[in-house]
Amino acid sequence: MSSKKHSVVIIGFGGMGSYHAQLIKENASLEVIGTYDLLDYRQAASVEAGYSVYKSFEDVLVDPQVEIVLIATPNDVHTEITIDALRAGKHVICEKPVASSKAEFEEMLAVAAEANRILMVHQNRRWDEDFLVIKEMYERETIGTLFQIESRVHGANGIPGDWRHIKAQGGGMLLDWGVHLLDQLLFLIDSKITSVTSHLSYILGNEVDDGFEAILQFENGVKALIEVGTTNFITLPRWYVKGLEGTAIIEDWSLTGKIVTRNHDSVIIEPKPIRAGVGLTKTMAPPSEGATVTEALPSAAQLPSSFYDNFVAVIEGKAEPIVTNAEVLRVLNLIEVIFEAAETHQVVQDFDIY
Amino acid sequence: MSSKKHSVVIIGFGGMGSYHAQLIKENASLEVIGTYDLLDYRQAASVEAGYSVYKSFEDVLVDPQVEIVLIATPNDVHTEITIDALRAGKHVICEKPVASSKAEFEEMLAVAAEANRILMVHQNRRWDEDFLVIKEMYERETIGTLFQIESRVHGANGIPGDWRHIKAQGGGMLLDWGVHLLDQLLFLIDSKITSVTSHLSYILGNEVDDGFEAILQFENGVKALIEVGTTNFITLPRWYVKGLEGTAIIEDWSLTGKIVTRNHDSVIIEPKPIRAGVGLTKTMAPPSEGATVTEALPSAAQLPSSFYDNFVAVIEGKAEPIVTNAEVLRVLNLIEVIFEAAETHQVVQDFDIY
Repeated sequence: MSSKKHSVVIIGFGGMGSYHAQLIKENASLEVIGTYDLLDYRQAASVEAGYSVYKSFEDVLVDPQVEIVLIATPNDVHTEITIDALRAGKHVICEKPVASSKAEFEEMLAVAAEANRILMVHQNRRWDEDFLVIKEMYERETIGTLFQIESRVHGANGIPGDWRHIKAQGGGMLLDWGVHLLDQLLFLIDSKITSVTSHLSYILGNEVDDGFEAILQFENGVKALIEVGTTNFITLPRWYVKGLEGTAIIEDWSLTGKIVTRNHDSVIIEPKPIRAGVGLTKTMAPPSEGATVTEALPSAAQLPSSFYDNFVAVIEGKAEPIVTNAEVLRVLNLIEVIFEAAETHQVVQDFDIY
Repeated sequence: MSSKKHSVVIIGFGGMGSYHAQLIKENASLEVIGTYDLLDYRQAASVEAGYSVYKSFEDVLVDPQVEIVLIATPNDVHTEITIDALRAGKHVICEKPVASSKAEFEEMLAVAAEANRILMVHQNRRWDEDFLVIKEMYERETIGTLFQIESRVHGANGIPGDWRHIKAQGGGMLLDWGVHLLDQLLFLIDSKITSVTSHLSYILGNEVDDGFEAILQFENGVKALIEVGTTNFITLPRWYVKGLEGTAIIEDWSLTGKIVTRNHDSVIIEPKPIRAGVGLTKTMAPPSEGATVTEALPSAAQLPSSFYDNFVAVIEGKAEPIVTNAEVLRVLNLIEVIFEAAETHQVVQDFDIY
C-alpha cells in the first residue's frame, strides 16, 4: 500500500453515501475529501459530518486532487456520472445496480477501457456473513452437495418512500435487493443458468415491482429460489438450503440457524406414521429418534480482502477485482431475463453469459 | 338417516384401508362387513381386527349384501376395481389419486353414470383443520384479501419403501401428497388457473418424483405455491399466506401459528434503517413498534358434514357431494399439466377445466 491515502469524493450523500463515508473512515488507504449532492439538507449533513461540499459536479471533475469518484445517487444517473468521471480521469466506485441495462453497462465499460481507469461496482453483500456461511457450506459440502438454495429477504414496510418507487429512476425491488441476492448466487455457483421463471409483485399499486420471486436452474443441478417481499408481516428464513446429507437454515442477519444432517451411525428405522390433520402420514413423520444430528452453522468463508482494500489494490495494479465487471454484466443480463420471464409468462432458456 | 347401517367392504387392507376401518367404526351409518387383500399377512391383520375376509374380489362383487366398495389399494388398480364394482351395482369410495389420468377417470365416471351408482373420491384433507383455518381466513378476509398462498409439506424420510416409489403403480409425491394439496387449493379458490410452472425433484434417484414445487396463478390475482419435499431435514411452515392487511403462518398440524396485521390505530412511523450483513436496509427493517398487531389464528371453517356422513347422504339421495367428481377431474387435469410443465420446461396456460 502507498503511504498516502487515495482521495474519494462521494456523489450523492444520502443514506448509502453517508454510510460509505463512515466505512471509509475506518479504511487505511482511502480518504473522503468531499461530497456533492443536489439537495441543500444533504449538503448541510455533509458539512456537519466534516466533509467539504463541492458546488457542482463539474468542480469535482476538474479537481486534480480527486482520484476516485464514489457514486451513491439514484440508479438512473449512475451511467452518466460514471462516464463523465471516467473521462475526467477518475477511478469509479458505483453503487448497485450500476446500470439499468446490460447495454448501458457495456457503454460504461468501453469508456473505462478507453480512459484506462478502474470501474468497480459496490456489490458489498458478497461480504455478508450469512452469505459467507452458505458459501462455506457450498464449498466444503458441510451438509453434502447442495442442490437447492432458497434466498429470501422479507419486509413489511413496502417500498421506501423515495426514488425507489419511481420506475424512471430505476426503482423497484428486483433492481434493489434483487441485484444483491442474484449477485451472491452467481458468485457462489460456478455453473451456467439453464432456465429462469419469475413472478413480479405489484400488490402495493406502485409502478415498480414491490417484490418478486425467481427460480433459477443451473447446469450443475442446483435449483435456486430468490425472493424479495415488502408485504411480509411474518418473515420466512433468510436462507433455506438442502444438501444430499441434510438441510441448513439461517433465520436472519443475526445468524440464528442450524444444520440438521443424516446420522450415519444410527440404525435405519422406518419412522412411525403420525396423524396429520384427518389423515395418517409416514412420509411426513419426523425422522426416528437418533436418525438425525443437529449442529451449529459452520463459520463463514473468508474473502481475500475487504471491498475497499481490494479496490485500492486494483487501482494500484496489485490485485484482480473480487467483483469483476464480467460478473456484474452477467447479473444485469439475468435481471433483464427475469423481467422478461415475468412479463411474457415464459420459461427463459439459453441466455446466460457464462 | 336409515336405521340400518350401509355395508362396506374394504379392498386393500394396508395402512389406509385399516385406517378407514377404524374411522368407519365411529360412524353411525356405515359398517365394514369384510375386507379383501392379496397379501396373507394383511388378511390375518383383518381377521385380527374383527373383519371377515373375502377369498376373491369376485366374491365381493357377487355378494348382494355389499352396498359399498371402498378402494384403498395401490393407485394403479383403482380404475379397474372401481369399474368392476360399479358394474356389479356397488357404490364406490376410492382413495386418491382416483386415477392416473383424466381420461381414465372420465371412463370411470361414464361407468358410474351407466350403472347409476355413486363414485366418490376420498379427498379427506379438505377436512384438515389447518386447511380449514386457511379457508376461514380466505372467506372472512381475516388478514385482508389473500393474494399469496404457500402450502408445503416437508419430510426427511424419502419416499416410503413400498409401491409409492414405483412409477407403474402410480408412485411419486405429486400423485401422493400433491393431489391433496392441489385439491385443497382448488376447493378453496373459486377462480380459473391462468398459468402453471413446476419443477419435479428426482434427487433420491427413484423413477418417480420425490417432491415437487408448482406455482399457480389464478385469474382472481391469487398466486399459490405448492411444495412437497421428502429430503427436508428442517421443515418450512405448513402454510404461509399473505393478505392485503397482514401475514399468517401455520407451522404444522398441531396448529402452532399466528397472524400479524397492520395496526391501523398506530401513527405511521418510517422504520429506522438496520444494519443487515455489511449493509444498511430500511426496506427490510422490522416495522416500528406498535405498527403491527400479533394475534392467534382464527378458528377453522366448518364443512357441512364429515366425509362419510356426506357419502351416506349422497347415496340416500339427500345431499350433494362435498367432493364433486368435476372437482376431482379438474385436479387430475392440473396434475397432468404440472408433469407437462416440468418435463417441457414451459409455462402452461389455457388448460384449466373451470
